[in-house]
Amino acid sequence: MLVYGKNVLKDVEVKKIRRVYLNEKFHDKEIINYLEENHIRYFYRPKSQLDKMVDRNHQGIVIDMDSFEYSSFESVLGEDFIVALDHLEDVHNFGAIIRTCEAAGVKSILIPKDRSVRVNDIAMKTSVGALDRVKIVLVNNLCETLKKLQKENYFVYSAFMDGEDYEMVDYADKKILVIGNEGKGVSNIVENITDVKVSIPMVGKVNSLNASVAAGILIFKMK
Amino acid sequence: MLVYGKNVLKDVEVKKIRRVYLNEKFHDKEIINYLEENHIRYFYRPKSQLDKMVDRNHQGIVIDMDSFEYSSFESVLGEDFIVALDHLEDVHNFGAIIRTCEAAGVKSILIPKDRSVRVNDIAMKTSVGALDRVKIVLVNNLCETLKKLQKENYFVYSAFMDGEDYEMVDYADKKILVIGNEGKGVSNIVENITDVKVSIPMVGKVNSLNASVAAGILIFKMK
Repeated sequence: MLVYGKNVLKDVEVKKIRRVYLNEKFHDKEIINYLEENHIRYFYRPKSQLDKMVDRNHQGIVIDMDSFEYSSFESVLGEDFIVALDHLEDVHNFGAIIRTCEAAGVKSILIPKDRSVRVNDIAMKTSVGALDRVKIVLVNNLCETLKKLQKENYFVYSAFMDGEDYEMVDYADKKILVIGNEGKGVSNIVENITDVKVSIPMVGKVNSLNASVAAGILIFKMK
Repeated sequence: MLVYGKNVLKDVEVKKIRRVYLNEKFHDKEIINYLEENHIRYFYRPKSQLDKMVDRNHQGIVIDMDSFEYSSFESVLGEDFIVALDHLEDVHNFGAIIRTCEAAGVKSILIPKDRSVRVNDIAMKTSVGALDRVKIVLVNNLCETLKKLQKENYFVYSAFMDGEDYEMVDYADKKILVIGNEGKGVSNIVENITDVKVSIPMVGKVNSLNASVAAGILIFKMK
């Protein structure tokens, strides 16, 4: 969703801002400091391009933000089963995982703020209505969030190639399933705090499942 | 893959032809009869557009064909577990299912010739090498093929919303799993010959899994 204007920038929650476009001639130091301090990505564009984005008086600043209402961290604490996506990149996978969670009765998904899918139009479309029934929580630091949840007696199960057979694991009552990035898998820092690595045994040589397919198989086993 | 020329048309296996583009001024009755008789889809295009497709003397005819080598029906007869895709439409789903089959040790996938995904560049890319280890069989009529396989003692299990719980079914040794179209599901004619409808129980209200996710859950259970 595009919004615009200097005052609006300060009104929008920082974590909802995807990026900001500034007129090439934009010089307001205070605004630029604000963007820098809050680690908001910004890009300079010709005025004609900003005019195309919004046909109002944008004061040289257009903000691309999430229109989706993310849920709070606290809202997940009552759940028995949470899914965490460790820097997933493909929004089609994200949509498919939202659908899977809804179908399996998983009500909360954690995603990190940076270098990750967000709830955009494609996620809304591919999740075909499931988004209304699954809470998405945007967290600043996935690893720190998982540690907090461990203190609340959650067990962290992460999907790996070389973990325990997912069908043989005795899952805890309060559990989190971590699905990694499509290419890189679960990150090292999350691996370090993982309680149990779980694996889907494969017989092939290519040895890789699509992230949303792997998530589906694990979620329907662990639910 | 694009090939061209009148003689080439006759040389290409009909089932490998996706569509044919003809120059607007193309008049060769014999060729047009051949296209009609073989139910090959063809479209008229300006010469300039054909020239862009191939920069050789195309004689007014450009053929879009599969470069992939499909396997024969006979080649699947030794398999214990076959997956059949009943008019799947999304080639990303197709790629994900090919990967899943490879990882689960399923060596053959049946797809119908018409109104279905084909092995194209996207399928090759999304299946990340798994295609080299899974046979894809293109069949003229999926229902007739399934009937033939039933005579060879295969049981046909089709994915439905209202079937038996997939975890409770006692699967036969020789089995076929049918996954339906993303929107319409398994077709009526295939439903009629299905031995057992299988279902993944869902608790949500949206009640739909992505086709490749559903396929993944069922394949890893049935393998």
